[in-house]
Amino acid sequence: MATSKKPNQGRYAYEGLDRVIHEKARLGILTSLLARVEGISFNDLKDLCSLTDGNLSGHVAILQEAGLVEVSKGTRGNRPLTVVRITTEGRAKFREYLDQLEQVIRDAMPEPAKQANDRKGWSPA
Amino acid sequence: MATSKKPNQGRYAYEGLDRVIHEKARLGILTSLLARVEGISFNDLKDLCSLTDGNLSGHVAILQEAGLVEVSKGTRGNRPLTVVRITTEGRAKFREYLDQLEQVIRDAMPEPAKQANDRKGWSPA
Repeated sequence: MATSKKPNQGRYAYEGLDRVIHEKARLGILTSLLARVEGISFNDLKDLCSLTDGNLSGHVAILQEAGLVEVSKGTRGNRPLTVVRITTEGRAKFREYLDQLEQVIRDAMPEPAKQANDRKGWSPA
Repeated sequence: MATSKKPNQGRYAYEGLDRVIHEKARLGILTSLLARVEGISFNDLKDLCSLTDGNLSGHVAILQEAGLVEVSKGTRGNRPLTVVRITTEGRAKFREYLDQLEQVIRDAMPEPAKQANDRKGWSPA
């Protein structure tokens, strides 16, 4: 049992896991947007993330409020087209978040794997 | 813009991100427990995860309800000692979750990095 006098205070608090980003659906939205600087239409995003209209609207509003994505409304042909894009700030914050996520994965590695990692570097399966 | 006929349905839905585990505080609790099969005392866990008594109790109850951790109450010297341990099931489910988390990180890698990964393997850092 970990009974040493004082363990590392907050060692596993993961303050960098921004709750706006960490929520599962928003994590999916940001991941899909990250590789597509040109943006994704609202309807494609719904499909990619398996979200309903209402759910996607809600999550996009939260991300927009936080400055992580921007939304533009236009038309394609005669039909309205809403496009969601990740902002420069969103990209930067999401990368910080991903760094923290990698830390979680490293922390969760069992000791032998960690030692192997120290010796020869680790690559995910 | 991603305008192909039909994008991968649910490609970024990440169904494997179990909400019981994904919540930030519980993610920290499970990560700290994973490397310590012998368990961690309630007080040490509070420190490690920067949680209050009430918060930790609540999250441990949720994890216990889901069968992911077990709690034993005993004494050390004359003082009561509560120890939290991850269960075998908890360990298995957390590893599944971590696999999904690694997928998120891979998905979020920019294309050039992905190609480099295909060629020579990728290591976080």
